[in-house]
Amino acid sequence: MEALLTRRSIRKYKQGDIPDSLIKDVLTAAMSAPSAGNQQDWQFVVIRDRQTLNRITEIHKSSQMLNDAIAAVLVCGDLAAERYRGFWVQDCSAAMENLLLAIHASGFASVWLGVYPRQERMDGLRKLLGIPEQVVPFAIAPVGIPNEKKGRENRYTESKIHHDRW
Amino acid sequence: MEALLTRRSIRKYKQGDIPDSLIKDVLTAAMSAPSAGNQQDWQFVVIRDRQTLNRITEIHKSSQMLNDAIAAVLVCGDLAAERYRGFWVQDCSAAMENLLLAIHASGFASVWLGVYPRQERMDGLRKLLGIPEQVVPFAIAPVGIPNEKKGRENRYTESKIHHDRW
Repeated sequence: MEALLTRRSIRKYKQGDIPDSLIKDVLTAAMSAPSAGNQQDWQFVVIRDRQTLNRITEIHKSSQMLNDAIAAVLVCGDLAAERYRGFWVQDCSAAMENLLLAIHASGFASVWLGVYPRQERMDGLRKLLGIPEQVVPFAIAPVGIPNEKKGRENRYTESKIHHDRW
Repeated sequence: MEALLTRRSIRKYKQGDIPDSLIKDVLTAAMSAPSAGNQQDWQFVVIRDRQTLNRITEIHKSSQMLNDAIAAVLVCGDLAAERYRGFWVQDCSAAMENLLLAIHASGFASVWLGVYPRQERMDGLRKLLGIPEQVVPFAIAPVGIPNEKKGRENRYTESKIHHDRW
């Protein structure tokens, strides 16, 4: 609960390293997400290559923090594994949110960089990373050492809650 | 991290009650999710009325567990609040996943009941609950007392992970 309430979008990272086990741990959390029919219609590209990270910043205009990230995970939708049509975006979003929460709970920093449905971002990443036709580049989670502090922000808004009916 | 790894879809509930603070706590967690441009383009209908819960099971064929649920939260997308076109589904999915994790972390049971993009489910809920035009019924999270035990399931799949490129 603490992790849910304190996760924030962190865009400034400093130099450092991450434990060997971190990527496996956060991907395990991502794959623990629910998916329609438990189809787990997601795939992941883990990018640690410095040149590739830097090149992504040319494709995705809001991803400049990747220059300082240690790694990044591109979550992709696997349309060939989707059983209930139209649900893959929700499945990948749940995996992405788990991924962000796991990175935060482990003491590292991340932010949701949206890719889908922006065509130029999808096309650019597909080409750069060699992603096949039936797979859709969905969102990027950088993994960084936090270099800014953001406290808990209470976004609870009573007016967004309706009781029994609208 | 423990909550991320142990959350499962629980569909069997027993009688009991929930603390007064629970709904507010889990909605606070839901609203702590990231959203595109921090637009928080979500709305929530909290349903505790027994007749309404039962009537939802007639609209949504996979929602029979609502007969035994104490409450349910319908997450909705607020298209009027969406700033970056096409991202509201991801925003609502992140809020929904936070909601499920918070219910689980609080010792209660839930499951992701997909609504959007199934037209008959959206239409039925819109009519039953009086949801306005610019708001889209997205997904339902029941809140129940767990009446089945499901252990941790390791869904980590090495073959879904690609390094630096596909």
